[in-house]
Amino acid sequence: MSRYTYLGPAGTFSEAALAPLLKSGDSAQPAANVTAALESVRSGNSDYALVPIENSVEGVVARTLDELAVGDPLMIIGEQVLEVSFVLMAKPGVSLKGIKRIATHPHAEAQCREYIAKNLPHAEIIMTHSTAAGAEAVANSDADGAIAAEVAAQRYGLEVIERNIGDRNGAVTRFVIVSKLGSIPAPTGHDRTSLAIFIAADHSGALLEILTEFAVRGVNLTFIQSRPTGSELGQYHFIVDAEGHIHDERVGDALKALYRICSEVRFLGSYPRADKVQPTSTKGMTDDAFKSAELWLNQVRDGKRA
Amino acid sequence: MSRYTYLGPAGTFSEAALAPLLKSGDSAQPAANVTAALESVRSGNSDYALVPIENSVEGVVARTLDELAVGDPLMIIGEQVLEVSFVLMAKPGVSLKGIKRIATHPHAEAQCREYIAKNLPHAEIIMTHSTAAGAEAVANSDADGAIAAEVAAQRYGLEVIERNIGDRNGAVTRFVIVSKLGSIPAPTGHDRTSLAIFIAADHSGALLEILTEFAVRGVNLTFIQSRPTGSELGQYHFIVDAEGHIHDERVGDALKALYRICSEVRFLGSYPRADKVQPTSTKGMTDDAFKSAELWLNQVRDGKRA
Amino acid sequence: MSRYTYLGPAGTFSEAALAPLLKSGDSAQPAANVTAALESVRSGNSDYALVPIENSVEGVVARTLDELAVGDPLMIIGEQVLEVSFVLMAKPGVSLKGIKRIATHPHAEAQCREYIAKNLPHAEIIMTHSTAAGAEAVANSDADGAIAAEVAAQRYGLEVIERNIGDRNGAVTRFVIVSKLGSIPAPTGHDRTSLAIFIAADHSGALLEILTEFAVRGVNLTFIQSRPTGSELGQYHFIVDAEGHIHDERVGDALKALYRICSEVRFLGSYPRADKVQPTSTKGMTDDAFKSAELWLNQVRDGKRA
Amino acid sequence: MSRYTYLGPAGTFSEAALAPLLKSGDSAQPAANVTAALESVRSGNSDYALVPIENSVEGVVARTLDELAVGDPLMIIGEQVLEVSFVLMAKPGVSLKGIKRIATHPHAEAQCREYIAKNLPHAEIIMTHSTAAGAEAVANSDADGAIAAEVAAQRYGLEVIERNIGDRNGAVTRFVIVSKLGSIPAPTGHDRTSLAIFIAADHSGALLEILTEFAVRGVNLTFIQSRPTGSELGQYHFIVDAEGHIHDERVGDALKALYRICSEVRFLGSYPRADKVQPTSTKGMTDDAFKSAELWLNQVRDGKRA
Repeated sequence: MSRYTYLGPAGTFSEAALAPLLKSGDSAQPAANVTAALESVRSGNSDYALVPIENSVEGVVARTLDELAVGDPLMIIGEQVLEVSFVLMAKPGVSLKGIKRIATHPHAEAQCREYIAKNLPHAEIIMTHSTAAGAEAVANSDADGAIAAEVAAQRYGLEVIERNIGDRNGAVTRFVIVSKLGSIPAPTGHDRTSLAIFIAADHSGALLEILTEFAVRGVNLTFIQSRPTGSELGQYHFIVDAEGHIHDERVGDALKALYRICSEVRFLGSYPRADKVQPTSTKGMTDDAFKSAELWLNQVRDGKRA
Repeated sequence: MSRYTYLGPAGTFSEAALAPLLKSGDSAQPAANVTAALESVRSGNSDYALVPIENSVEGVVARTLDELAVGDPLMIIGEQVLEVSFVLMAKPGVSLKGIKRIATHPHAEAQCREYIAKNLPHAEIIMTHSTAAGAEAVANSDADGAIAAEVAAQRYGLEVIERNIGDRNGAVTRFVIVSKLGSIPAPTGHDRTSLAIFIAADHSGALLEILTEFAVRGVNLTFIQSRPTGSELGQYHFIVDAEGHIHDERVGDALKALYRICSEVRFLGSYPRADKVQPTSTKGMTDDAFKSAELWLNQVRDGKRA
Repeated sequence: MSRYTYLGPAGTFSEAALAPLLKSGDSAQPAANVTAALESVRSGNSDYALVPIENSVEGVVARTLDELAVGDPLMIIGEQVLEVSFVLMAKPGVSLKGIKRIATHPHAEAQCREYIAKNLPHAEIIMTHSTAAGAEAVANSDADGAIAAEVAAQRYGLEVIERNIGDRNGAVTRFVIVSKLGSIPAPTGHDRTSLAIFIAADHSGALLEILTEFAVRGVNLTFIQSRPTGSELGQYHFIVDAEGHIHDERVGDALKALYRICSEVRFLGSYPRADKVQPTSTKGMTDDAFKSAELWLNQVRDGKRA
Repeated sequence: MSRYTYLGPAGTFSEAALAPLLKSGDSAQPAANVTAALESVRSGNSDYALVPIENSVEGVVARTLDELAVGDPLMIIGEQVLEVSFVLMAKPGVSLKGIKRIATHPHAEAQCREYIAKNLPHAEIIMTHSTAAGAEAVANSDADGAIAAEVAAQRYGLEVIERNIGDRNGAVTRFVIVSKLGSIPAPTGHDRTSLAIFIAADHSGALLEILTEFAVRGVNLTFIQSRPTGSELGQYHFIVDAEGHIHDERVGDALKALYRICSEVRFLGSYPRADKVQPTSTKGMTDDAFKSAELWLNQVRDGKRA
């Protein structure tokens, strides 16, 4: 029985992303913001937190990256990718024509502007704290329709009028599941390793050195972003996602090299990729290759072979 | 006389960032969103658009990056960096104790939560489309206080009750000024060049190759972010900021190399850095060094020297 | 009508390598050593010198490398590769059994030791300045047999008793044809460019930087050797052979980069490879790719495209 | 009591280089050539062989490099650097004027040509197998003077007429002391590690990859030479000397990486440098740095820290 916290409120995409993970007996509590969700794990009030880390349209969630990179250490143990589908909903029996007031969050309004202009040009827009609060407003009769995640319709007893009303379809959000430090999920063959890498100074070529350590070991990156470190000008760190698992020899070897040459390296987690894409197997970079090399070196050092 | 568009509405940080740029006779119009602001330049309705590109707390503005990288080509010609200072404001004569209802945008509320909890624990929060709309609500007596940019107080005839009420001080937003393609601002010695770099495939080491082209020419990067390209899985492009100006030989040379090895390179602009930091002068990387090398090669090719 | 000098004396492998190059009216003079051969070109007494530069068994000819790298500048305009085949020769009518005294150069004796031990175990070995001098000694009746290049048999009126008597067959020597600076041979599509590259100091990674400049432009190396520079300890230069011609854009571009970052670069020549192997054509590294990149950059700098 | 073989004959520079190594009870036998000297160690007839590997004027001794790289494995355990000083010697009482016939090896004659031309312009030159054989010829009255290593004068009872008569002074030869595989000499802090590195194919960038493995670990190279592998065209291997000892973590780590990515790596020995130059200590590349990184990785893998 696990205790989950997710970025609230209830009835939003985070809750929808969490749903498939919940087993009988698990509990799930919304948190007011990303920091509160993660703090709940740090304090022991929750076992896991689910928070968004990247949206294909809106970009990275800087708060999540910064909390993981510079807050008290936590560990990503999994990821969920959810298609962001905005749904127009109303009380049972209400049709499109009956909607005069739409309640939703400004972000959702911004992403459904074309639909609204075409189908509800005269509707009044009422801003709410969250898309779920929009659905709640409909349930309370403070609005006629809401734009929200489908999960909110269920929660507030509303009916779906139309799905996928966003101006850009296909947008996805990647969520991460975060726990305290502890047992790292076992390798699956299609893993991702997230790191925060701090460089000693913004010296020319520091980033090149970092990428070279990955490249010489055949480790691909799937994400990279520079972030300012604190408030000091010209101080940067990098958040990177690498293919593979910390228990893979090539990944562990790359991490050791980074540890030696960087100001700080923080391990943010090794966990299965949601898309199950496997790293390209590179000759000379397998665990067996690393073990053979170790064996060979030991024999050479012992003077038993050349 | 220049026509500016900025990310609206009026009375927000974007307007504050634009203010120092306006000269007598210039006009400034708010736009509903980043896309609309840039479209105004594309269509010729405006000469320049000012839009946010990066916030030190909230991260990059993905909409701006994506518009510049994959929308119809535009060009950054300048940047403005503004400290994001949230201000509590009310009608003249109203004190802290008189504030029962606060109007603001959800983001601002999220960033001032500690102040509110401590100083206005019982106030009702009214969500608005923008922080400026919060100020307007106060002017219209729909709320008692607003959390907004100081510029909104002037616009709506309100008084500042307290400045810098954000939970994290020191946050800054970087805005870019964007024009149609045309005359690139002259080099100043402290310039930045922004690029969108598309790789042919997510082949191992593609990013390393890109960074190597910069490094062998002594060109530092000050920003890097990978972005998914469209909706195709595993397709990435990179937004990078490099030190120097496209008219610098080393920068131009690096761009030519990227053009040869990448699927696509888009020049997003060369413009003066707001912080006026100059690139580290590297031996062998000056314009003179490039010209001497060209001269030498021509003489060698002509058989006049070895 | 060209005047050639070759590493003498007459009747050695150098003369054999030169033979196919001579046209009606050309003259060919032996020189006492590599320095003398090259000096003859420098002084204008000869148009061309042919000297050995590398032997697959004996290694590089350091004297040739050093003369080209640090002597007064000359230019390689061609290469000849000759299989080194040692021949046992004697006066007409003399058979193997009649050979009691063998005249040859110590190097040739060293490379034919197995043959001698098996076929002429009791023969006296008379050392001569050159293999040709060995043949001359036979002609003068100071010896019964000589081990020399086949060309010496013709020159001294001797008959071949056995060919290919070297212990290791398949050895080849590469000779270079050297002229004063002047017109570089036109590109053929299968060219080699030789360079002497001096580094400012033995700083860690200097060689890596040099190789990176070649690699980022898709230029392969076919030969590399470090050489001490003068008598100073810890000062090195490198002799490299690169695929391609100085008139190839990628090669010229690499040379310019080396000129910028190295203490000194000396061009030693671009000339057709004897083996006619063509460089692997690499996408993005053709002359067309370089020209397109130049065109693109100019248009971008002029603000006409992004 | 050790049994040494050296490149003979007695009375040459090899014997001079060996002299300081010999302890009471040790024996020293000349061998006819480099291969014979090394074969004597392989067969167990000798404990050690001393052979030349590089001369600052004549270049590398390809036979030595090839025997170590592709012959049955042996191991370099030390090096000796000897200034090559040519000495004119004669029987006691004979002066410069009394020398009408000079006996020496062709190489020595070539390197003392200026001296001979100036001081003994009319002398007949008698070629011998070795410089020592020249001294022997003087002892046997077959010549009046010899050009040889000073050690030959002692051996054959001759007197030195003049030292340092070479055209280029300051030439040095580096000799290596070679044993069977077995106990590697302990690290001294100023060691050199020699390697033969075979690449799978002459693929573009193979050499760059090799050098990168050294560079990312802060390991400098002091020597590099490409050598053709056997008789196959386009197959190369590289002989490199690296700073440091195989028991240094950074060197061992680089060797493991090479073992993984190369077709073959052969360890040729770790041994003290004759010049006692220490590697530049690089931050992050010490044994302690490697051990700390290993410790850190193990703790991270165990979930005990990030």
